[in-house]
Amino acid sequence: MKLVIVGAVAGGASAAARARRLDESGEIVLFERGEAPSFANCGLPYYIGGVIPERSDLLVAPEQRLIDRYRLDVRTRTEVTAIDRTRKTVSVRNLKTDEEYEESYDKLILSPGASPLRPPIPGADLPQVFTLRDLRDADRLREIVANSRRAVIIGAGFIGLEMAENLARRGLQTTVVELADQVLPPWDAEMIAPIATHLQEQGIKLQLSDAAEAIEPSERGMTVRLRSGKSVPTDFIVMSVGVRPENKLAVDAGLEVGPRGGIQVDEHMQTSDHDIYAVGDAVEVRHFVDGSAVQIPLGGPANRQGRIAADHMAGRDSRYRGTQGTAIVGMFEMTAAMTGFSEKALLAAELPYEKIYVHPGNHASYYPGAQAMSIKLLFNPQDGKILGGQVVGRDGVDKRIDVLAVAIQAGMTVDDLEEMELAYAPQYGSAKDPINMAGFVAAGVLRGDQPIVHAAELLSDVGENSLSDSGSFVLDVRSPEEFEAGHIDGAVNISVEQLRDSLNQLPRDRQVIAYCQVGQRGYLATRLLAQHGFDVANLSGGFTTYEAVARSRTQEPAAIS
Amino acid sequence: MKLVIVGAVAGGASAAARARRLDESGEIVLFERGEAPSFANCGLPYYIGGVIPERSDLLVAPEQRLIDRYRLDVRTRTEVTAIDRTRKTVSVRNLKTDEEYEESYDKLILSPGASPLRPPIPGADLPQVFTLRDLRDADRLREIVANSRRAVIIGAGFIGLEMAENLARRGLQTTVVELADQVLPPWDAEMIAPIATHLQEQGIKLQLSDAAEAIEPSERGMTVRLRSGKSVPTDFIVMSVGVRPENKLAVDAGLEVGPRGGIQVDEHMQTSDHDIYAVGDAVEVRHFVDGSAVQIPLGGPANRQGRIAADHMAGRDSRYRGTQGTAIVGMFEMTAAMTGFSEKALLAAELPYEKIYVHPGNHASYYPGAQAMSIKLLFNPQDGKILGGQVVGRDGVDKRIDVLAVAIQAGMTVDDLEEMELAYAPQYGSAKDPINMAGFVAAGVLRGDQPIVHAAELLSDVGENSLSDSGSFVLDVRSPEEFEAGHIDGAVNISVEQLRDSLNQLPRDRQVIAYCQVGQRGYLATRLLAQHGFDVANLSGGFTTYEAVARSRTQEPAAIS
Repeated sequence: MKLVIVGAVAGGASAAARARRLDESGEIVLFERGEAPSFANCGLPYYIGGVIPERSDLLVAPEQRLIDRYRLDVRTRTEVTAIDRTRKTVSVRNLKTDEEYEESYDKLILSPGASPLRPPIPGADLPQVFTLRDLRDADRLREIVANSRRAVIIGAGFIGLEMAENLARRGLQTTVVELADQVLPPWDAEMIAPIATHLQEQGIKLQLSDAAEAIEPSERGMTVRLRSGKSVPTDFIVMSVGVRPENKLAVDAGLEVGPRGGIQVDEHMQTSDHDIYAVGDAVEVRHFVDGSAVQIPLGGPANRQGRIAADHMAGRDSRYRGTQGTAIVGMFEMTAAMTGFSEKALLAAELPYEKIYVHPGNHASYYPGAQAMSIKLLFNPQDGKILGGQVVGRDGVDKRIDVLAVAIQAGMTVDDLEEMELAYAPQYGSAKDPINMAGFVAAGVLRGDQPIVHAAELLSDVGENSLSDSGSFVLDVRSPEEFEAGHIDGAVNISVEQLRDSLNQLPRDRQVIAYCQVGQRGYLATRLLAQHGFDVANLSGGFTTYEAVARSRTQEPAAIS
Repeated sequence: MKLVIVGAVAGGASAAARARRLDESGEIVLFERGEAPSFANCGLPYYIGGVIPERSDLLVAPEQRLIDRYRLDVRTRTEVTAIDRTRKTVSVRNLKTDEEYEESYDKLILSPGASPLRPPIPGADLPQVFTLRDLRDADRLREIVANSRRAVIIGAGFIGLEMAENLARRGLQTTVVELADQVLPPWDAEMIAPIATHLQEQGIKLQLSDAAEAIEPSERGMTVRLRSGKSVPTDFIVMSVGVRPENKLAVDAGLEVGPRGGIQVDEHMQTSDHDIYAVGDAVEVRHFVDGSAVQIPLGGPANRQGRIAADHMAGRDSRYRGTQGTAIVGMFEMTAAMTGFSEKALLAAELPYEKIYVHPGNHASYYPGAQAMSIKLLFNPQDGKILGGQVVGRDGVDKRIDVLAVAIQAGMTVDDLEEMELAYAPQYGSAKDPINMAGFVAAGVLRGDQPIVHAAELLSDVGENSLSDSGSFVLDVRSPEEFEAGHIDGAVNISVEQLRDSLNQLPRDRQVIAYCQVGQRGYLATRLLAQHGFDVANLSGGFTTYEAVARSRTQEPAAIS
């Protein structure tokens, strides 16, 4: 059997290696438009920033190894320009020699990836405006970074922020422009607000809810004109506003493509032509949680898809279970991670959900160095099935998101989180791990032990003063010292320790909303007051979440520039 | 309702807090023999070593907070000496005043914990021989450590090794004596061998397969005489040879107790008397994986059991799902973690299993600072269900054991590990996470893609030279440089890259055992040779596991003293 693979990074390279292991005798041709197969594209920002010192470090599976070890016919700087499905051939152009030829296939795997979008604004084609996709882009950027003082990044997604971190580390004055009112738009705004603050503390300028309208050459570089009216001078620009599936080959060949441009495949990664498979960032996949069609470009899924395609063409019944969108990004000392649906995605999909927030320490508070993290858990309000999770903090974030990712994969409920037996020694966690805590709170809400309200409801659409309109009595159960240091406008302070002796100070004709710093004392207060007949609810995540929600609503250009 | 709780640490404290949240009006009396409720017993070694600087740090829920916030009737330095089940009273002695009295209960929760064993050897009752259980022990040890140069620790379990680390950090010459031929006996020997090496590199002396026979006062301290004939001079001794459930109250009251001394409870933590519950280290629990009765003292389970007991007496149907034995220990720069069954436990339980080893990096190899970890995965050879896992390494060990712990809880198989979508950015993991790698290998073994052999079989009972007897052809598929640096005796070196052109050098009448450094090239070689008709198997975990197994067999006193 002759297998031809278009694209030799992640999915394509995985498919080739797997195909060879399954079939020692088959011919495997691996076409790569770039100059190297299987390079570490997730490492490019760190190579540009010098964190990864050597270019050769990025060559995860060097060409010669693929040839020697896997007997692959690797052809780099070679582009596949067309597919003839009837004759089962592809048209090929050698980019080094411009030679064109045809190559036949028995099975074809498309792994072309996705290409960075370049918004059609005036000046977007200037030479100092870059996108980041491959080694060549990274080489050029590494060179220009070494000779620049200022940078503008357009788009605050993964690549944009990783670039921002690396450029700031290299000492460049770095400005990030983002159309949304938050960085890292896949996350919910209140969860990611601390990341934005952290970036600003590191000297990165954020222009949120703003957009580049034009790029103009200037005497000493160039100027980005923003919709807000602002102008940002810079030496160069990185465009990272998103990617588009590379579907031209597929479309030209008449393969089915989804509404967002992703090549459509079945669970075996087979396209509408059963001799052609497609994997990686170019394909449309099913979301694991609800089965909807989505476009989620991620390295892990691309690798698994490549493996599954190779399996299936070798006669195996491998199936891709869908993508759940597990993602993580490091920003200086902080980490943001998510898995499954965000709240905004649940709202867009009109799926029912409940949510809770907790802010536990990454490990036992009595062991030095404990740091708080924030967890948002989204779950089905009927059966408690976990729909999504977000974790933001410092150490230990990656561990908790992986636990939640597995819980989602297993179809677990919030009760299962309560019962998890996770590794505990004081350097690593707590007898009640952050994940257990999230489970306790969510399961308590589900069982009705703990009615909750959310900061967004308190802050509703009329702004911070909505509180007095809502008719609720807002009760701060923290200590007077904590209350003094900052509290919700209009709140009355009675510490949880004093509460039992102060019941006559609370109204019986209005809802009492109790809150503390993170929700634990608020929970106790809620239990206590409910048993005394009050209509009471706990503010989920306490003042910490409240402040994050409030901050996420004010992160507009004027406030942060 | 009046609830009386015996023991205010972990399970007892959790039960009290939960009971109060569920019942604001009930009377809750919390008896504690020690001087403080709810102290961090897992932190004691680190307090002794000065890592945790302040004693007050250990008081997780200070007495006054329990009183003020939860309205508990906390009575410290107070011992419960007997239970009268007919009259539903307990006999109490105030250890400060020696006053004795009775206290009635509607429901009683026993959370007495477990007490350290003190082997009955001559000299075990000398004043400078300590055990470590509570704050008072820790205070005494902290004081003596400050005035000592030498320490002997008897028992290389969790507490013994955590003490050893902390004493060595304080500059003491530290010797650990352990009856077993390995440290941390719950782990399998070959997995924990690198921890022993690491301890030795930090200057800790290990006396494995040895025992203290007598302790004798000497001119400048004391001397421990060992079974091996050796004598170790020391300033003081810590006995950490294990714990025994504190079951005296229960036994005297006629409650049922298991063969290992654990108080027997049902899934609601109810003893044979339905008004009496028992939780924590004193109870016998079901092993989650096979339902067998076990005695596993752990902080996380104790806390959950306390919660469940409080739930059930409040009329809720909470059930304890069993303990799966998730444990973790940090030793200087290294971490060892496990969950579920070890191989030795599976052997003892005569349960069928298969195992695989992998040695992946904690994060992407192209990002600086990647460190290898070792994973051993134990699974059912029929259906692939995960039975246990052990992970040893540096960073990222705790994350992988938690993922495996959740997988076991969810009843997942090795195929599920293949499909896990874990968080990947180069600082945190790999597109193919270590857990995915373990899943790939195990699932490949199950599917018959990859016949494997184990180092223990190669090293069988006739020693390292058994190889030539086995009739197998041992093939080292690494590079000549790797081969030169160390290889299995009798192995022939043909790199995987040369293999296809060297098939005529391999025997067709004997089994070929292929190996590389960690198993990946060995896997490719196995696939390749099998397709060429050879009878071939891959050495699981490669030379790395082979060396660990060999080392674990030679870690005897002579070799390491």
